[in-house]
Amino acid sequence: MLKLFFGGCAVVSRMALEEARVPYELIVVSLEKSEQRKPEYLAINPKGRVPALATPHGILTENPAILLYVALTHPEARLAPLQDPWRLARMNAFNGFIASTIHVEFSKTGRPERYLNTEEAKAELRMRALAALRGHFELIDKELAAGPWMLGGDFSTADIYLSFFSQLATRFDWFASCRNVAAHLDRMKQRPSFDASYAVPGS
Amino acid sequence: MLKLFFGGCAVVSRMALEEARVPYELIVVSLEKSEQRKPEYLAINPKGRVPALATPHGILTENPAILLYVALTHPEARLAPLQDPWRLARMNAFNGFIASTIHVEFSKTGRPERYLNTEEAKAELRMRALAALRGHFELIDKELAAGPWMLGGDFSTADIYLSFFSQLATRFDWFASCRNVAAHLDRMKQRPSFDASYAVPGS
Repeated sequence: MLKLFFGGCAVVSRMALEEARVPYELIVVSLEKSEQRKPEYLAINPKGRVPALATPHGILTENPAILLYVALTHPEARLAPLQDPWRLARMNAFNGFIASTIHVEFSKTGRPERYLNTEEAKAELRMRALAALRGHFELIDKELAAGPWMLGGDFSTADIYLSFFSQLATRFDWFASCRNVAAHLDRMKQRPSFDASYAVPGS
Repeated sequence: MLKLFFGGCAVVSRMALEEARVPYELIVVSLEKSEQRKPEYLAINPKGRVPALATPHGILTENPAILLYVALTHPEARLAPLQDPWRLARMNAFNGFIASTIHVEFSKTGRPERYLNTEEAKAELRMRALAALRGHFELIDKELAAGPWMLGGDFSTADIYLSFFSQLATRFDWFASCRNVAAHLDRMKQRPSFDASYAVPGS
């Protein structure tokens, strides 16, 4: 059975497993306790990050790669337009943008100490990241104008990935003005996979 | 014909087009002149970044997505293990790591003003990024121990993507100690696609 090392943004990979109805074992890695930096976990993922998906072939990391892997190995779940290279590329471009830009900006707002020590510099980094995020979400809001999903009529992993960061963005006062994104998040919350992916056993 | 909007890390997407022998038109976007922020370019890619690949279907952005798109649409070039979901996932995981971590750290070393104003904070950001990059390259060095390519015996887009940042890393004094990465870069330089992807017409 697949094992998912879980915490933080690993919700994203988990939601794909839930959508595809793939059985998996959940292993919680506490980011609060910095368990991702402990030797036991570094032996699994030397990058010291979650998610990590243990498969019969080996360990797979990085949300965009795990999303596409689940989609490819479970085509019946229709999580990606596997027969259309152009639309698949659009999905991957969106997931790439989330991973390399949206996620990076969020980590500056939430954990500026990963980047800097002085209070003044941390505050500046945070302020700039917040402004950048607003711009990025406004762009996504335009892309979602057709909707209901990121690729239009068909649900895909891009919707899963977006929903994690939309949920984080609900704390910002400008979020409600991104109406298409807010409506998209509401649609995502109606899917059983959403709540299931955040639930932590025994808590 | 495809059009590639070119500058900075767009070398990566160009190298895939060169490897696949796809005809394309090159349109240079001068990052020095901040042309990527001009209205003409924002109409093409509202994110204000390169690369952007204009295709008959529309505009595609993000290196990892363009790499896979070129591989999928030109299977004869064998740029990705398209028939093996696990090895394809490994390639995508590596490309995702480069995009969301290696590239991000490089942008802090090269353009800290994108992040911060004060000199002290910029110096700190740069120092941390340099230390992180060294750790990341040491990990990649271990992964390349089997070689000769990132996925072992078969060349893939992961080799293209790595080579761009290896070339940037040659400026660091620790680079030579990453012997497998240095040897990988030498192998990449022997491919005709390497020099061809850096060449700028008329310069």
